[in-house]
Amino acid sequence: MSALRAFIAEREWAQFHSPENLAKSIAIESAELLEEFQWSPEFDTDRVRLELADVLTYCYELADRLGVDPDEIVLEKLEITRAKYPVEAARGRSAKYDQL
Amino acid sequence: MSALRAFIAEREWAQFHSPENLAKSIAIESAELLEEFQWSPEFDTDRVRLELADVLTYCYELADRLGVDPDEIVLEKLEITRAKYPVEAARGRSAKYDQL
Amino acid sequence: MSALRAFIAEREWAQFHSPENLAKSIAIESAELLEEFQWSPEFDTDRVRLELADVLTYCYELADRLGVDPDEIVLEKLEITRAKYPVEAARGRSAKYDQL
Amino acid sequence: MSALRAFIAEREWAQFHSPENLAKSIAIESAELLEEFQWSPEFDTDRVRLELADVLTYCYELADRLGVDPDEIVLEKLEITRAKYPVEAARGRSAKYDQL
Repeated sequence: MSALRAFIAEREWAQFHSPENLAKSIAIESAELLEEFQWSPEFDTDRVRLELADVLTYCYELADRLGVDPDEIVLEKLEITRAKYPVEAARGRSAKYDQL
Repeated sequence: MSALRAFIAEREWAQFHSPENLAKSIAIESAELLEEFQWSPEFDTDRVRLELADVLTYCYELADRLGVDPDEIVLEKLEITRAKYPVEAARGRSAKYDQL
Repeated sequence: MSALRAFIAEREWAQFHSPENLAKSIAIESAELLEEFQWSPEFDTDRVRLELADVLTYCYELADRLGVDPDEIVLEKLEITRAKYPVEAARGRSAKYDQL
Repeated sequence: MSALRAFIAEREWAQFHSPENLAKSIAIESAELLEEFQWSPEFDTDRVRLELADVLTYCYELADRLGVDPDEIVLEKLEITRAKYPVEAARGRSAKYDQL
């Protein structure tokens, strides 16, 4: 995403954004998103949207570092998951594939 | 993303995928991504790509639940971050905005 | 905890267990604990106990690295939290201290 | 830990502290600890100590909920790990047990 790339370049932040540091950042922002649900399943949509945006931002940046397209890798992984969770076995169940 | 939506519908998984459970799932998958860097900054690109795809998949699903577009909320948040981290103050520094 | 220290020394693992890597490990194990609750608040006590033990193990190791006693820092922090959450204001509420 | 138990009872917080919510809280606090190492392996000992205390506090509370002693479950798990990582195979290596 070019706007994101320009934003980081202007601030000379690529030096901090190693894949390892981006992976840490994704975990940190994911926990801030989870904090919106810490004590209850109820949530504030505006706050959740902005926290989700933070997770996505670092995900997009890591994808860019790896030279892959976010949408393409989601589809690639979906095919792998499809093989592990056939519709017949998985329908209406939250069990892990090794317990289906 | 329509392929993802169809995948979940076929398996009748929407019942498990409340926003709270998706937020937990994003945190869980983020930690699996981080595990690729647990003992070293070196990494296996193929494994990292697939773990990143898992994080993105749940992020896209949560965005879908909230009725928002992933790219749009990233841009929305970028404008907020831009105001907090002006180029002059932030260039080449990893400090938090309240310490700039 | 001397048994833990001996276990690590025998395996020459201290070289991998920098404070940064221990912090990553605590986050990774915390997510495995959370995974026991991914789709439901119901849980298997035996599995939760063992996942909690993993989180605690790395916490104890980090405490050891910092030269502090786990119980003492919990009590130290409890005093700080006590000042932020006076009984009168906090009773029966899950709000953050800045919203009390 | 009786001081912690009294602290929670006074504030009538047990109602919020289900095992599931404590697992979320442990993951959230672990990420705050990780944030101390987000951009660099260098760290501030005082800040790390207090963030570690937050993780430990929720871990102790979950142990209390499960009716187990934190030190005992760490030792229980250490015996399991000992069997998976024999000294001869594991010495000086960070590989997972299934790759030793």
